[in-house]
Amino acid sequence: MIENAPVTACLIVIGNEILSGRTQDSNLKFLGGRLNGLGVRLVEARMVADEEDAIIAAVNECRAAYDYVFTTGGIGPTHDDITPASVAKAFGVPLRRDEQALAWLREHYQDHLGDLNEARLKMADVPEGAILIENPVSKAPGFQMENVFVLAGVPMIMEAMFEDLKDRLSGGQPMRSVTLSAYITEGDMAVRLAEIQARRPETEIGSYPFLRNARLGLSVVVRATDDQALKLAVDEVRELIRFLGAKPLEHG
Amino acid sequence: MIENAPVTACLIVIGNEILSGRTQDSNLKFLGGRLNGLGVRLVEARMVADEEDAIIAAVNECRAAYDYVFTTGGIGPTHDDITPASVAKAFGVPLRRDEQALAWLREHYQDHLGDLNEARLKMADVPEGAILIENPVSKAPGFQMENVFVLAGVPMIMEAMFEDLKDRLSGGQPMRSVTLSAYITEGDMAVRLAEIQARRPETEIGSYPFLRNARLGLSVVVRATDDQALKLAVDEVRELIRFLGAKPLEHG
Repeated sequence: MIENAPVTACLIVIGNEILSGRTQDSNLKFLGGRLNGLGVRLVEARMVADEEDAIIAAVNECRAAYDYVFTTGGIGPTHDDITPASVAKAFGVPLRRDEQALAWLREHYQDHLGDLNEARLKMADVPEGAILIENPVSKAPGFQMENVFVLAGVPMIMEAMFEDLKDRLSGGQPMRSVTLSAYITEGDMAVRLAEIQARRPETEIGSYPFLRNARLGLSVVVRATDDQALKLAVDEVRELIRFLGAKPLEHG
Repeated sequence: MIENAPVTACLIVIGNEILSGRTQDSNLKFLGGRLNGLGVRLVEARMVADEEDAIIAAVNECRAAYDYVFTTGGIGPTHDDITPASVAKAFGVPLRRDEQALAWLREHYQDHLGDLNEARLKMADVPEGAILIENPVSKAPGFQMENVFVLAGVPMIMEAMFEDLKDRLSGGQPMRSVTLSAYITEGDMAVRLAEIQARRPETEIGSYPFLRNARLGLSVVVRATDDQALKLAVDEVRELIRFLGAKPLEHG
């Protein structure tokens, strides 16, 4: 990795329910924010269906293109939970029943061992060579294969799994950001904002309109890994907002 | 297109704010649901950064792979709004200022023509050969290039644009779905549910756990384009839930 090159990640959200519009994904927002804080930039996300070919293609394209890949969804006990088998195929290795995973499931079901049927036992199957990711909520683990982290789709479980794996990530410098909001329109600000962006290439300046109390406003988000560069650009944006006769509201 | 082959679509969500975790995307959910109703299946979605190379690659891969491609975001007046220029490059054509788009902007700003500065005029630039998509909210249009529909990122505007373009889509048979919910766990149901899925390959059966009033439940969603196939599978899932001693709650 080139020194100072950003550490990159891609998220693959697996599940027909996301694409059909039935379920609102929230894992992207969580992971995007948390990875950013660890100095890892989520630069792409893909939502794919519960279909083996689609999962294999996405995993193989993304693991070659990015430093880290995260998948969410498809690791439960039902017939449409095909993520572990698909990831095994993507890596060209067999699935095998993991002893540690099996022990966790047995402990979880110790008072109702009869419930640990073949469908639930499937949750102990991981690709050969995988390193487990603990699931403190319902015990069925996620796993890591090289730079690919396979997580649950249920947000509460996915978030708990992230706590277990986060120390395995080597991040770069975290991006810091400052948001300045004002009742001003994008078009009034665009030319001068582009000048600031051109003058401060080490920052990333985005602008996002909002509608509040029937008034159109704009949030300008300035992001940078370097605190001094961030401060200089924020100062210029603040000045620009005042120059345009508006009052900047600021939050980190 | 093969007869009865599903009509497919891919959504490309463009914007750093989605990937950084700052903004929760809601356009995927809207488009997934609306396209489904028109007989078009959203089979993939990609979130990419405001970067030309990423946009060009996603547009070119998706327009070759799917019947329709939708993009949201990046068509405003600021420096980070680079979608039209990137789509033009993806198609290998120049951007040009569109007379109709210009007329719409002039009408919108008629009482404040001084506000129609160079940044806002940029919103009248579309790739050569594009067909405009009307924006009743703020006038700056979206556009269609062959099978690619370029829409605003602001949900209210994107949704209004979708109303304008939807008659241009030729859908297949819409997927209908029935959801059966019960206080039952996935693992108890998985083996028999897989048997129903195997017996009814013309349907698509998904199961989604939920937690309500501190009780774990499961929603089983059965989808099919054929009403009779849907009914047969739903009857079997309903019977299975009753067989397992639970009470099915049903909604379409």
